[in-house]
Amino acid sequence: MISRLVDRIVDTGAPIVVGLDPKLSFIPDRIKDKAFEEKGVSLEGAAEAFWQYNKEIIDSIYDIVPAVKPQIAMYEELGIPGLITFKKTVEYCKEKGLIVIGDIKRGDIGSTSESYAVGHLGSIKIGEETFRGFDEDFATVNPYLGSDGVKPFISVCNREDKGIFVLVKTSNPSSGEFQDRIIDGRPLYEHVGEQVEKWGLESMDGSYSNVGAVVGATYPEMGKVLREIMPHAYILVPGYGAQGGKGKDLVHFFNKDGLGAIVNSSRGIIAAWQNENYKQFADGQVGDAARAAVFRYEKRHCGCT
Amino acid sequence: MISRLVDRIVDTGAPIVVGLDPKLSFIPDRIKDKAFEEKGVSLEGAAEAFWQYNKEIIDSIYDIVPAVKPQIAMYEELGIPGLITFKKTVEYCKEKGLIVIGDIKRGDIGSTSESYAVGHLGSIKIGEETFRGFDEDFATVNPYLGSDGVKPFISVCNREDKGIFVLVKTSNPSSGEFQDRIIDGRPLYEHVGEQVEKWGLESMDGSYSNVGAVVGATYPEMGKVLREIMPHAYILVPGYGAQGGKGKDLVHFFNKDGLGAIVNSSRGIIAAWQNENYKQFADGQVGDAARAAVFRYEKRHCGCT
Repeated sequence: MISRLVDRIVDTGAPIVVGLDPKLSFIPDRIKDKAFEEKGVSLEGAAEAFWQYNKEIIDSIYDIVPAVKPQIAMYEELGIPGLITFKKTVEYCKEKGLIVIGDIKRGDIGSTSESYAVGHLGSIKIGEETFRGFDEDFATVNPYLGSDGVKPFISVCNREDKGIFVLVKTSNPSSGEFQDRIIDGRPLYEHVGEQVEKWGLESMDGSYSNVGAVVGATYPEMGKVLREIMPHAYILVPGYGAQGGKGKDLVHFFNKDGLGAIVNSSRGIIAAWQNENYKQFADGQVGDAARAAVFRYEKRHCGCT
Repeated sequence: MISRLVDRIVDTGAPIVVGLDPKLSFIPDRIKDKAFEEKGVSLEGAAEAFWQYNKEIIDSIYDIVPAVKPQIAMYEELGIPGLITFKKTVEYCKEKGLIVIGDIKRGDIGSTSESYAVGHLGSIKIGEETFRGFDEDFATVNPYLGSDGVKPFISVCNREDKGIFVLVKTSNPSSGEFQDRIIDGRPLYEHVGEQVEKWGLESMDGSYSNVGAVVGATYPEMGKVLREIMPHAYILVPGYGAQGGKGKDLVHFFNKDGLGAIVNSSRGIIAAWQNENYKQFADGQVGDAARAAVFRYEKRHCGCT
């Protein structure tokens, strides 16, 4: 699966993943009003608004970015109707040729991790037929439970040609509380990074592994070290923009050939219509603003502006 | 919320939580056949079988145990239909007076953790009305992202009188890979335990805190130390039975008054009808076998056998 992502990145020339993390406050009234009218002022109505909003964004960006990353928490907040929108979003993005990274941060003991892996990346046989729960292309995984919490995901990746990104160093301010603590002279996140590289060798797909890593844009120096510790891991970089990560810092996450990392931008793209840099779209042109924001991001990332 | 759990433990005299972790292989043919006939040999059919199976168990044990712990991964494996069964199970257990611990092991950066917390423990305002996603009483939380990943859960707990159990030392064989690594002379799990105690002081409810801890039964010596480090945390103890934790080891997790811990048993109760110790129920009397297994467990735990 990672080779498919790399191909898409090369084709689009954009190492960007768009975080499809809807919030009601990002959605223009015209979409909300219609959704509430059709489905009620309810969880169902809110979930319908998420879906229509996502659809406008997807329709406007699917040809210029390689991938999207829906954050399942935003959908789970709305209970079952929200998760139905999550599933519809995953399906629609795949129809449009986008690669879908389910930002689910799951992780449990072995047999339980297997259930998560099957539900999100794999398939289950019932009777004579095979069914798929959510069927993302990639999922993010929490490593706190160690190898037997991660390996069931890798087994499913190998069986189904899917991939994972393991949390190594997250982008939030208190990520250091445990992740930066020194063990045998090196921070915990480096130890986790070493394991990611080791796990990844069990699932190579071209020059990179189906086992990637999450390393926050907010910590570029750590990204530099981790880039070296995990030569086969693609790095998913959240925290760019809204969380404080800056463009020039991103260079550390990439290899010399411009590959090796994919940067997530969520609010900066999906809520661009609310940003004063895109005043021409302030009437709620969600999709046009998102497309403009992607182009702007690309230019900035190339150092053209 | 923790005081409600303590009251229920005292009333039932049973510091046991029943893990509602269904698998198709645990379910008798009579339930599966009927479910598949009604809903098809499909995810919907399997989810219906989970529901009917859960219902038989709940109806047989609701008066003798204080709490249940559905493991959401088992439901998520079946996609949306599975999660609908999860939600129905949560609701039904609460109607029966059981306290529900959603074993969801969520955890993310601050704003995202807040969405999980709202979806599982809290409420969301849409228009003028308030809605609830899954509405468990407690949820399990992964601490890898540090305080700002955990505190949004605590805010929701304080607002809604709910609780969490934070993963400190998990029951699986490779839990030591990161959790046992030595930092400033002490294993990581002790540092996490210290934080749990600190976080917990922000959410006291009687003698204990709404912020509890998960500590695996498979590591009794560590349980002993953690019991001391976290005097206000209730300890949720998984891994008893199937994963190798033994009855005599459980004593370390409890305080002298018999409180302070609640032990999870899943397969040993919900699949008791398949166990050779309960041959009289081998025709698929799921509920009767589960009830017998709870009584047997209680006797063993009291040291009566």
